[in-house]
Amino acid sequence: MRITMIGSGNVSTHLAAALKNAGHRIIQVFSPNIGHASLLAYHVGAEATDDISTINAETDLFIIAVKDDAIADIAEQLAVHQKLMVHTSGATSLKVLSEVTPKAGVFYPLQTFSKEKELDFRSVPLCIEGTDEAITKHLIELGQTISNNIYRVDSAQRKILHLSAVFACNFPNYLYYVAQNLLVKHELDFNLLRPLIMETAEKVQQQFPAVAQTGPAVRNDVQTMAAHEQLLEGDVFLQNLYRLLSEGVMKMEKN
Amino acid sequence: MRITMIGSGNVSTHLAAALKNAGHRIIQVFSPNIGHASLLAYHVGAEATDDISTINAETDLFIIAVKDDAIADIAEQLAVHQKLMVHTSGATSLKVLSEVTPKAGVFYPLQTFSKEKELDFRSVPLCIEGTDEAITKHLIELGQTISNNIYRVDSAQRKILHLSAVFACNFPNYLYYVAQNLLVKHELDFNLLRPLIMETAEKVQQQFPAVAQTGPAVRNDVQTMAAHEQLLEGDVFLQNLYRLLSEGVMKMEKN
Repeated sequence: MRITMIGSGNVSTHLAAALKNAGHRIIQVFSPNIGHASLLAYHVGAEATDDISTINAETDLFIIAVKDDAIADIAEQLAVHQKLMVHTSGATSLKVLSEVTPKAGVFYPLQTFSKEKELDFRSVPLCIEGTDEAITKHLIELGQTISNNIYRVDSAQRKILHLSAVFACNFPNYLYYVAQNLLVKHELDFNLLRPLIMETAEKVQQQFPAVAQTGPAVRNDVQTMAAHEQLLEGDVFLQNLYRLLSEGVMKMEKN
Repeated sequence: MRITMIGSGNVSTHLAAALKNAGHRIIQVFSPNIGHASLLAYHVGAEATDDISTINAETDLFIIAVKDDAIADIAEQLAVHQKLMVHTSGATSLKVLSEVTPKAGVFYPLQTFSKEKELDFRSVPLCIEGTDEAITKHLIELGQTISNNIYRVDSAQRKILHLSAVFACNFPNYLYYVAQNLLVKHELDFNLLRPLIMETAEKVQQQFPAVAQTGPAVRNDVQTMAAHEQLLEGDVFLQNLYRLLSEGVMKMEKN
């Protein structure tokens, strides 16, 4: 397939690399920052442009991997070419594209990408939606060339998925940060916690989180919780956070 | 070394196996539940007992791996033998032992253990403290036979460490549970999130959490945050939790 990447951020970079490795041709990379466009274009053997009016219309698919609030505007400008276009956003409805073109879809890779860190794209869940069944099937076939985890997910479900990813990724990472800060303040090394963080994530690869839960709150160990809150004295924010999260754990339904 | 295990829970089980594999002799396992004592004793080739008065005094070390609030009582009963004893608790001061015997220490493995899941003990951080320098050194040497990650951690630091482990392990696991519940309610598969959870933990093995942070809060994307809060409508608890965690992320110091 001939594919045009719109955007040159983390998602676009990983997606373009995976598609190229699977034998597709990335023909062009667009970014308003020509330096970023050129870097990604160089890696995948494509042409770079920062001028949307020079977009090559001889393509099979536009992949719009830009900030959520820029998708609508870009889609409108690309619609003139009457080619299939998808966005890669978890939080954006398919409607944003289907309002400007009948041939639209979503190609949402559910993973946290950084440019510096490689990862195996075949294990990345790809959530797919199309404006009609033919397009959906076409996108599923494309998805299967780069990932073993293809899911049909409609726009309403995708919103929930995106929200749940905040709870499963962004917030845990913030809690790692809180833990690290506590260590730093007491001259302890973050390496002390790294194996624990890893094992906590590994446990729920097989089990469900309710089974894997440990710690004072799930044991209703009020003495330890009181001691922890006292250690956090002087930081009302962290005390509130500790209390609220412990309350959640105590209300968990063990299944 | 001849070692006596007091307790037969997760920590005792993993520790006993690691010590046996390193060539030490587990001579006896005590548990008030003879079935549990026998099972662990069988695995490590030891004798089992549920009667503390039949404890074999011909040992070099008592490892007390029982619930925090049971440590003091057991230590008092073992003190008569005048042998070195350590506990394995993150939240308990060395004082609980040193009040009943001069030869005491702490041997705290900072990891979340489950009996069903094997793990490589050599990567488990072991936090060590002794009542004097000779005992500390002796325990460090013992620790080095089973782990590559030995740290000297005093009782005040260990309390902080234990608190930070709640933030780095127990609370993230609870957030996985919240995410899973959101998925289940909308007929989505938890497998969709498992690779994301894994990658989030993997990222901070090299980087610091502040660098790895992603999501709407760190971008100050108030529109997405408002949409997420609306999706949580009807669940005031989760709305509060979402708001508080997002507030924390927005206050993060990117370093």
